[in-house]
Amino acid sequence: MQTASTTTVLRVMNERAVFAEVFRLGQASRPELASVTGLSKPTVAVALANLEDAGLLRQVGRRAGPAGRSALLYEVRPEAGHVLAVDIGREFVRTALTDLVGEVVARREEPSRGSRDEDLVAQLTRLADDLADAAGISRGDITLAVFGTPGVHDEADGSLHLAPNLPGWERRNSVARLGGITGATYLVENDASLAAIGEASYGLGRGVPHFVYVLIGTGTGMGVVIDGKLYRGFRGAAGEIGYLPIGDGDPLLDEPGTHRRGMFESVASAPAVVSSGQRLGVLDIVTAKNVLDAARAGDEAAVRTLDREVDYLSRALAGVTAVLDPELVVLGGGFGAHAGDLLTGPLLERLGRLVALDPPRIEVSTLGAEAVLLGAVAVGLTAAHDLVLDRAAPAGIAGLSKS
Amino acid sequence: MQTASTTTVLRVMNERAVFAEVFRLGQASRPELASVTGLSKPTVAVALANLEDAGLLRQVGRRAGPAGRSALLYEVRPEAGHVLAVDIGREFVRTALTDLVGEVVARREEPSRGSRDEDLVAQLTRLADDLADAAGISRGDITLAVFGTPGVHDEADGSLHLAPNLPGWERRNSVARLGGITGATYLVENDASLAAIGEASYGLGRGVPHFVYVLIGTGTGMGVVIDGKLYRGFRGAAGEIGYLPIGDGDPLLDEPGTHRRGMFESVASAPAVVSSGQRLGVLDIVTAKNVLDAARAGDEAAVRTLDREVDYLSRALAGVTAVLDPELVVLGGGFGAHAGDLLTGPLLERLGRLVALDPPRIEVSTLGAEAVLLGAVAVGLTAAHDLVLDRAAPAGIAGLSKS
Repeated sequence: MQTASTTTVLRVMNERAVFAEVFRLGQASRPELASVTGLSKPTVAVALANLEDAGLLRQVGRRAGPAGRSALLYEVRPEAGHVLAVDIGREFVRTALTDLVGEVVARREEPSRGSRDEDLVAQLTRLADDLADAAGISRGDITLAVFGTPGVHDEADGSLHLAPNLPGWERRNSVARLGGITGATYLVENDASLAAIGEASYGLGRGVPHFVYVLIGTGTGMGVVIDGKLYRGFRGAAGEIGYLPIGDGDPLLDEPGTHRRGMFESVASAPAVVSSGQRLGVLDIVTAKNVLDAARAGDEAAVRTLDREVDYLSRALAGVTAVLDPELVVLGGGFGAHAGDLLTGPLLERLGRLVALDPPRIEVSTLGAEAVLLGAVAVGLTAAHDLVLDRAAPAGIAGLSKS
Repeated sequence: MQTASTTTVLRVMNERAVFAEVFRLGQASRPELASVTGLSKPTVAVALANLEDAGLLRQVGRRAGPAGRSALLYEVRPEAGHVLAVDIGREFVRTALTDLVGEVVARREEPSRGSRDEDLVAQLTRLADDLADAAGISRGDITLAVFGTPGVHDEADGSLHLAPNLPGWERRNSVARLGGITGATYLVENDASLAAIGEASYGLGRGVPHFVYVLIGTGTGMGVVIDGKLYRGFRGAAGEIGYLPIGDGDPLLDEPGTHRRGMFESVASAPAVVSSGQRLGVLDIVTAKNVLDAARAGDEAAVRTLDREVDYLSRALAGVTAVLDPELVVLGGGFGAHAGDLLTGPLLERLGRLVALDPPRIEVSTLGAEAVLLGAVAVGLTAAHDLVLDRAAPAGIAGLSKS
C-alpha cells in the first residue's frame, strides 16, 4: 500500500510503468499507454519524453487512430542494453547474447572445459568476446550477465556448494571470477531453478502459479515456482531432490557430504540408469540414451530398467506432491526430456497410487536443452531493465523497481 | 505499483493504513500515525475522524508530547467486532471468542462429538451461544468465524477431503453447515496450516520467513510458511506429509484412498507409536504418552520404539528439507509437543546425515495444544478487520484491502 510519495518518486514510478508496458506490448502509442497504466495522457507524455532522452525508448512510426487521427508509436530501443546468458552444464556450455528486448543477437555452444575452474573462466571469457564481436559491441558493453550452474550459490562466502562436477568452485569467492568475465553486474542461479523460470516465461509453466521443473540428466534437481515466482528456500537449496531418501538400501550407512547410496540422485540420474541397465543385462550400453533406444526396440531388460526408474521417480514425485501440491510437473534435463514420452504414462499411473488426491499433471518440457538458457535470458532481461532504468533515474532513488 | 487512483480510493486506502497502524501500535496519536504511514497530518486527521464515526476507533486520552503539548490518543474499539475461533480436533473441540483487538473474551474446550456430523454442528452451535452469552452479545453478532479441521477443504464442492476421522464431511456442501452456525462470514482451514500461522503470529515462527510446522498426533500434517505467508498448494493439499512414501513395506501393495502401509502417517502417528511399542514388547501401553513415560523411565523396548520414530521422522524431514530448504522445523501436535524433548537431539543427528547442507533448526512448539486456535485467531482478526473496514467504506470499493 502506497502512503507516502514525492513528485520525484512518482515520476520515476510512472516512467517504469510506461517502460514496462511498452516492452510488454512491443509497440505502443500514448493513448494506449494512458489506458493500460491508468496514468493521464500528459503524464505519459512526460514519461515518454524522459525515456526517449535517456535512450531507452524510440519513436517508430505512426498508427492510424480512430477518426483518422494517427498516433505516434514507441518501442524499447533494443541496443540500449545487452544480456549475456550462460548455462554452465555438466557437459556443454551454452551461451547467448540478447539485446534489451530479448532478441538473441548471437549464440555459441560447445563442450564444457569445466573440469578446472581456470579453464572454464577462460572458455567463458573467449565466448563472451566472441558473442560481443558478433553483436558489434565489446565485452565491457554487456549490461548484465546471468550464469546457470549446478549446485547452490552461497552468497555469503561466494562459493558454490553441491556441485561435485565443478571442482574448485567450492572455494570462497570463487564465484566472483564469473563476474570478472564482463565486469558488469552478474547473477548466479541454480540451473534447475533457471529452467523453471524458462518454463514459466516461455514454456509449459506460463500461467501456472505453482509448478515444479524436475531435471534428470547427469545429475538431478528441481526448480520450484510458487505464486509465479522462483522459490529458493532458506539457503538457496530448495529443490535439491537428489537428496530425497527414497532409494534402496540404508542411506545412513554412507558418509555425508556427497550424494549417497539410497538417495534419489544415486539411483535415478542418467548415469544411475546406465549402471542399472548393465546390472539388469542390457547389452552394449554406454549412455542412458542407449537404454532408451533398447527399450523402444522392445529389449526386455531395458524395459525393466526404465520400470525401476519409474518406481524411483514416482516415489520422489509422491514426496514432492505431499509437500508442495503442485499443479504441474515439467520433466526436463537431458534424460528427462528424451525419456519423457516413455515415462509419463507409467509414472502417472504409479504416482496415482501414492498420492492423497489426484496426481499433478506431468508433462515433458518442450524447451528441451534450451530451458536453462531461456531462464537466464528471462531473469537477465528483468534485471537489465531495472539496471538501465536505475541509471536513467535521478540520484537517490535507484533500485525503486526492486521492491 | 500504483498508477491509477481516484480521491475516494486513496481516502479508503489511507483509512486502512491508519487503522492497521493503530491496531499494530495499540494506541497512537495523530503525529505518530503521520510519521509511520508517511501521510500528512491533515490526511491522518480526516481518516481518524471517519474511522471514529464508523465506530472502529475511539479516543482514549492524551499523552504528553514534546515541548509540553499533549497529543490525543486513539485505539481500536474492541467491541466493534468479534471473532469466533474453533479448533475441531480429533479428540477435543477448542473454541474462543475474541474482540476486534484479539483479546480472548471467552473460551470453551470439551471432548469432540465429531463422530456424527450433525452432533458436531449441534455441539459447536451450543458452544457459540455459550461464548456469545459470556461476552454479552448474541451468536448472530459474531463478525466472522474460523474453523480449523483435519484434511483439505475443497472450496469447489464444499466437502472435506482426507479427514477420515470426520465421517460425513466428505459429502458435497457439508462444510457450509459450519457457516450456518453463526450465519456470518466463515473460513475453513487445515489444522496444521492454522498451527503454522499461530507459530508465525505468536510462537517460534515470528520473524522467520520460511518454516514448517510438523504436527504429530492422532494423525500427521504440516503447515508450510513461505515468505511469511501460508502456502496451500494447488488444491490446498500442500503439507499432507502423511503421504510421504518413506515407511517400511511396499506402499504399492495397498489400495488408494486412505493412508496406506508404508506411508509416513501409518508408521509415525501417535497410534502407530503405540502399535510399534506393543510389537517391540513395551508392557502395559495404551497411549503414546505411556510409551514416552516408559522411555523416560529407561525401558529399553520403549527407547527402541522412539528410535524407530526418529528414523521415520528424520526421513520425512529429509524429504521436506530437500524440497523446501526451510530455516526452521517446529514440532507440534499432541505427540510432537510432548515427545519433542526426547526426539530433537537424535533427530538432528540423524537428519544431519541425510541432508545436503546443515540441517534446519528443529524446535518444539511452545504454543502446544493452543497453536491451532491461536492460528484461527490470527487469521480471523485480519479477515475481521477487512470486513469491518469494507462495511465502513463507500459502496463500490469494498474488498480493497484483500489485494
